[in-house]
Amino acid sequence: MVDTVGLVREHVGAARAKGRSIALVPTMGALHAGHLSLIEAARSRDAYTVVSIFVNPTQFGPNEDLAAYPNTLEADIDACRRAGVELVFAPSVAEMYPAFDQTRVHPGLLADTMCGVSRPGHFVGVCTVVAKLLNIVQPDFAVFGQKDAQQALIIRRMVADLFMPVEIVVAPIVREADGLAMSSRNAYLAPQERAQAKCLHRALKAGAAALSAGTMDESTLRAVMRAEIAETLGESEADERIDYLVAVDAETLQSIARDTPQVLLAGAIRFGQARLIDNLLVDPPGRAG
Amino acid sequence: MVDTVGLVREHVGAARAKGRSIALVPTMGALHAGHLSLIEAARSRDAYTVVSIFVNPTQFGPNEDLAAYPNTLEADIDACRRAGVELVFAPSVAEMYPAFDQTRVHPGLLADTMCGVSRPGHFVGVCTVVAKLLNIVQPDFAVFGQKDAQQALIIRRMVADLFMPVEIVVAPIVREADGLAMSSRNAYLAPQERAQAKCLHRALKAGAAALSAGTMDESTLRAVMRAEIAETLGESEADERIDYLVAVDAETLQSIARDTPQVLLAGAIRFGQARLIDNLLVDPPGRAG
Repeated sequence: MVDTVGLVREHVGAARAKGRSIALVPTMGALHAGHLSLIEAARSRDAYTVVSIFVNPTQFGPNEDLAAYPNTLEADIDACRRAGVELVFAPSVAEMYPAFDQTRVHPGLLADTMCGVSRPGHFVGVCTVVAKLLNIVQPDFAVFGQKDAQQALIIRRMVADLFMPVEIVVAPIVREADGLAMSSRNAYLAPQERAQAKCLHRALKAGAAALSAGTMDESTLRAVMRAEIAETLGESEADERIDYLVAVDAETLQSIARDTPQVLLAGAIRFGQARLIDNLLVDPPGRAG
Repeated sequence: MVDTVGLVREHVGAARAKGRSIALVPTMGALHAGHLSLIEAARSRDAYTVVSIFVNPTQFGPNEDLAAYPNTLEADIDACRRAGVELVFAPSVAEMYPAFDQTRVHPGLLADTMCGVSRPGHFVGVCTVVAKLLNIVQPDFAVFGQKDAQQALIIRRMVADLFMPVEIVVAPIVREADGLAMSSRNAYLAPQERAQAKCLHRALKAGAAALSAGTMDESTLRAVMRAEIAETLGESEADERIDYLVAVDAETLQSIARDTPQVLLAGAIRFGQARLIDNLLVDPPGRAG
């Protein structure tokens, strides 16, 4: 494990000098099977794989779970070693945000919806730290999870807009047996909350079924998804705990229309301390493949 | 001359494969002796020198001189050739800001003063386009002019904050015989305005003399500089045309104190259509070198 920019560049430079391609998997630690699938996506291309572990303060709001975010650094380093990761970069906040740090990368309109509404400033923090990490490691490609669909889209947009010389790979969601998307925040769930939490994926699947049957109306799709949540949580709890449920154009996050090529069904729901997100990408009928 | 990102990368990649170091000199065209000094700074290090010529719309406010900005592309390309520039990159707006472009780089506090006050959003446009150009060309170093002191400082801050793998070189101001700083906007000056314009540099020199004599009080230094402007323009015209005159810490752009290591004296004044800027860096007495 290294914790300075200088050491990362030394190791990466040595790997590049040996002709290796370089992969970056940015994480906030608390690694689970979802992260391991991102690492596997990098390893499967025979890249020198760098995993960053950094709980980035600028992407947490003042009332969010920064202080409580799970810290399992030693277990994470072990898991990386077993997964064949060649370099773990776990910097301090002072290393990533040196004195007088001022610059912020703003993603624009894509951040004005979904998670960006309830987490103002979140995606500015995400873009800023990802820009820093990409410039520090200078990988050939970086792997992000589709679990954070809006984040993956915003990062792809940032890399395209700023002409960053890196390929962004988005790896599919890894789920528990009952469909719950893997997340470090699942660790917050009490047993009853854990049992309820699978309703989010079920709701998205119900929306996908309606969409595949020809429903291209956003409010109908929302109602279908909400009904599944209400079945588990009850009507008033559903309204209280649903942060958002959307059916939007997967590239623009804007309203769907008859000719939308791909639809993103996505939701965020609070279960106790945890705010869980999940999503499905669906090709409308007649447009698959 | 090339006008696409792909072609720039092809040429730069070929030069790098030959072991050359790469220099970028970003310009908005209308090249004058000041720009040529930036090119010379790159050439003196034997770098493969890329000059970008791009009048960046996002750094102009709605009431500014974007449409009127001098366009002398053919003469500029000629001047670059004569100066030994190996590649001119003159992209279209659509090449630099493709469809759906959203991402913006915000410089933070350093932009909240001086030119940033009268040109809101200007430095967001500057940071964004410079980030794009640095990522397109991926130079070993990029050369900026000290004439735009605040810009040079903000770019250095951005590169440090985002860990961009590039060295920023700041080249000294080039002046006309009477002290007027070279600027593409000098072309806007009517003969009488041109004669008056030299008072800006004279004012800065008066401020520097006062500083060197021991005056470390900002309002006194401002008054000394303003008096020089008023001598040329008259009292009421001076007040009307002075955008700002400041004596600030050269690294932070904040108020000076007894222990400020270096002071930036800077001013912006309107002469007819032109808003001219100039500055001097001064080491307070006893701190020189």
